[in-house]
Amino acid sequence: MPRPLHLHPDRMLPADPQVRAIARALYADVANLPIVSPHGHTDPVWFAGDAPFKDAADMLLSPDHYVFRMLYSQGVPLEKLGIRNPDADPREAWRLFAERYYLFRGTPSRMWLDWVFAEVFEMKVRLEAESSDLYFDTITDRLGTEAFRPRALFDRFGIEVIATTESPLDSLEHHAAIRQSGWGGKVITAYRPDPVIDPEADGFRANLAAFSELTGQDCLDWRGYLAAHRTRRAFFASMGATSTDHGHPSCRTADLPLAQAEALFAKVSRGEFTTDEAELFRAQMLTEMAAMSLDDGLVMQIHPGSFRNHNAAIFARFGRDKGADIPIRTEYVHALKPLLDRFGNEAGLSVILFTLDESTTRA
Amino acid sequence: MPRPLHLHPDRMLPADPQVRAIARALYADVANLPIVSPHGHTDPVWFAGDAPFKDAADMLLSPDHYVFRMLYSQGVPLEKLGIRNPDADPREAWRLFAERYYLFRGTPSRMWLDWVFAEVFEMKVRLEAESSDLYFDTITDRLGTEAFRPRALFDRFGIEVIATTESPLDSLEHHAAIRQSGWGGKVITAYRPDPVIDPEADGFRANLAAFSELTGQDCLDWRGYLAAHRTRRAFFASMGATSTDHGHPSCRTADLPLAQAEALFAKVSRGEFTTDEAELFRAQMLTEMAAMSLDDGLVMQIHPGSFRNHNAAIFARFGRDKGADIPIRTEYVHALKPLLDRFGNEAGLSVILFTLDESTTRA
Amino acid sequence: MPRPLHLHPDRMLPADPQVRAIARALYADVANLPIVSPHGHTDPVWFAGDAPFKDAADMLLSPDHYVFRMLYSQGVPLEKLGIRNPDADPREAWRLFAERYYLFRGTPSRMWLDWVFAEVFEMKVRLEAESSDLYFDTITDRLGTEAFRPRALFDRFGIEVIATTESPLDSLEHHAAIRQSGWGGKVITAYRPDPVIDPEADGFRANLAAFSELTGQDCLDWRGYLAAHRTRRAFFASMGATSTDHGHPSCRTADLPLAQAEALFAKVSRGEFTTDEAELFRAQMLTEMAAMSLDDGLVMQIHPGSFRNHNAAIFARFGRDKGADIPIRTEYVHALKPLLDRFGNEAGLSVILFTLDESTTRA
Repeated sequence: MPRPLHLHPDRMLPADPQVRAIARALYADVANLPIVSPHGHTDPVWFAGDAPFKDAADMLLSPDHYVFRMLYSQGVPLEKLGIRNPDADPREAWRLFAERYYLFRGTPSRMWLDWVFAEVFEMKVRLEAESSDLYFDTITDRLGTEAFRPRALFDRFGIEVIATTESPLDSLEHHAAIRQSGWGGKVITAYRPDPVIDPEADGFRANLAAFSELTGQDCLDWRGYLAAHRTRRAFFASMGATSTDHGHPSCRTADLPLAQAEALFAKVSRGEFTTDEAELFRAQMLTEMAAMSLDDGLVMQIHPGSFRNHNAAIFARFGRDKGADIPIRTEYVHALKPLLDRFGNEAGLSVILFTLDESTTRA
Repeated sequence: MPRPLHLHPDRMLPADPQVRAIARALYADVANLPIVSPHGHTDPVWFAGDAPFKDAADMLLSPDHYVFRMLYSQGVPLEKLGIRNPDADPREAWRLFAERYYLFRGTPSRMWLDWVFAEVFEMKVRLEAESSDLYFDTITDRLGTEAFRPRALFDRFGIEVIATTESPLDSLEHHAAIRQSGWGGKVITAYRPDPVIDPEADGFRANLAAFSELTGQDCLDWRGYLAAHRTRRAFFASMGATSTDHGHPSCRTADLPLAQAEALFAKVSRGEFTTDEAELFRAQMLTEMAAMSLDDGLVMQIHPGSFRNHNAAIFARFGRDKGADIPIRTEYVHALKPLLDRFGNEAGLSVILFTLDESTTRA
Repeated sequence: MPRPLHLHPDRMLPADPQVRAIARALYADVANLPIVSPHGHTDPVWFAGDAPFKDAADMLLSPDHYVFRMLYSQGVPLEKLGIRNPDADPREAWRLFAERYYLFRGTPSRMWLDWVFAEVFEMKVRLEAESSDLYFDTITDRLGTEAFRPRALFDRFGIEVIATTESPLDSLEHHAAIRQSGWGGKVITAYRPDPVIDPEADGFRANLAAFSELTGQDCLDWRGYLAAHRTRRAFFASMGATSTDHGHPSCRTADLPLAQAEALFAKVSRGEFTTDEAELFRAQMLTEMAAMSLDDGLVMQIHPGSFRNHNAAIFARFGRDKGADIPIRTEYVHALKPLLDRFGNEAGLSVILFTLDESTTRA
């Protein structure tokens, strides 16, 4: 018999009874507030099409790189978990997960998954080898019902607004479909220009060509390139965006003289640049984005400090976002100074700095 | 009606009753000890002249850059708070502060200010918009009485000794006045040579010229420059100093051969140096100061790790010490080695390292 | 009268009664488990010869650099404590320690020593000046009895297995003696190749010559040098080793092309190298060791992040391991990438990273 699944109502609170009482009171104040998520990690196609999720693995295993990366570290091949492998049997993938679920004890992934299992899917027993099929069938069955479609879940979870992030090259067709559908859920986009800003991004030069085509600007020319950003930011704002989002390796900013910025752009746009020049270009672009934010009012979100795709073999075989991102120490005091020297005293600029790791947030 | 101001006697202690009981007992042991402050951030002119503070803003707002910097971050112009602006109305400046005092919830500034309000000025209600004038008038009135003059406060607070810091170029006239006044309070100086040691300090070359004039040494010559330090250290010691104090950006030390130290000094004293050379010169001078401390017994206080005047616009308009200093990560293990290799095994050397931020104190 | 020595059974547990109850239950689960020590800091000669320790100072003072370094910091000459000085009187050395034992309040050394005093030697009073001779005599007497010989203590402490570390140049004669003695205690070695891997180690070139002689390989040739490692690793494994152990200053790894690795080895083996080349060679050797671990199954233990022999005067006079090692911030994310890019997806490789300081473990 699988053991019962029981969520202690105070499981996230301090153990001391006096402190716990304070924590309970504080939590009670916020527990039922609506969710306002500026960086929601959801796919707008879910809400545009409102198609049901296929099965338990499709919803909870294969999109969650924290989960499958842990299983890979214990020797489970990613292919068997359905990563880049449509032939994987989802029931068997789920079983590989269930057999190893004890490995997640004490992790945020388990805290969150146990909540999903107990509260969203009303499971009464723990996930383990013996309950694997029960979980797979119960979750998969429910996902086929109206109440578990993306829009129904959006409403059930009390989401006031959620922001996705899209490339400047994205047509935002799914956001358009959401708005035209008459559904009342507020799903907005955010301008995430990394693919046309990071010279080291996959396909950067092809992205610049597409950027030119999409905007009618000459994006191999510095002025045209900046104008293209302005055009797409305006379009994103017209589709509901209230922010930009920047996932740079560091928080470095720069404020180069025009001629130098132009020369640097000429290099990176030709694909002829050093690692340092790529970093300097990203740094310069944060300041350019801040300048545009002063004009169009979009809040800047900066997410520095992730060493992405650290596992070279996984990256080569499975691509990005496969659990090989590692938080690294990130310097802010020197890094932000060029941007702040230029715009730091402007009342109209809002910058949100996300820090990935509490011990890496100091200079 | 403003809400009552109540200081919980255990407000700084842990919440758990058993741990709190231990904390209370420990605190009771030290609560009434006299204050011995080696780095007191006070102005000797207060104790020399014993003139009353003018008003609430003059005492508690305009000298406290932690307070006015927070207000500035919320859009209040510094001029309106009386910073570099003698025309500002102190009552109106105080009101701008009172209206925004809720912003300080949970800050050390508020912990400290509420204590001052309740214990020193016997305020019974909280500082907020409605109580702004009551605060301003009550505090200002009391500041006009004998019991609130600087010397009376010094006695009331149980200060055994407090050290100020002065430049080598300071005449120490206020300290002389204190000693000649017959007042019993012990206010001593500390030798803070940054203005004649840091090549990047404002007016460094003019300071060297003044240093020559004051000491009769040729302070553009390495030997003369060191002799001038010895002369002024002896004078400071004769005026009660027991320590030196060094506010360098980093804790780097160096122990250069004489010829190299001389050549480096020649560069910095001509004002022809790189950023690295300025850093190396400061590093060398920490070791020179340690050598002199072995002779004259002054304890070395080192305060590294503040990125000063980070806000360029504020610095240009209002000068230094305007709340734009940010703690940065500071390396000690490698940095101190040259000084320690030279003098680290000397029983006669005492060095106090101040660390500005708990998370930046490791190598 | 010396004060009583009382070990509170909960002295290491949290103060809050509810949390303490949880801690007690967790501790009770593990308190009597056998000790499996992969890095045991013991000398195999103790177990080979099973000779009694000479006296209290011989066992507890002169081998413990955490203890004598603290005494040195308070002005006690190391010679008087018996460090590199066979003429020191152990009873007097012990007295110097006893008089200053109060200095250890709140240190891990005191936590551990009080346990040894109370539990192993059944002392009833605290160590202080007045009890110094009582301690010295009681401990020294007991050390002369059978029950306090190294093997008896090994059994008493419930050690299942302990690993020492030896240089590749070590004959492992003491381990051989242990195995031939018929005693059942499991004391194994670990392959610690720093003396023939670190170009900056004392006597590195002489070590390479001895490495050649011992293995019959030409250790001034890259292939011969690697073959010598394989030979000695096989010998260590045959003597029970299950791991290697690497005490590098940083965790840097490298994966150089063969020609470059050969050229680098040629430089370091001639003793003609820069600091950077020494670091790069150590980095390359971690990857070479990982390659060999894939063949012979030895687990890699890496102990980076100690700045060793920081006190130059102590090092010159007393040699290494004299309490002048300081934990430093250590970067892992970039440093390990070359090794992981080569072998990080191999199921057969086990690497244990030891971190010396909780605040220095992040990138």
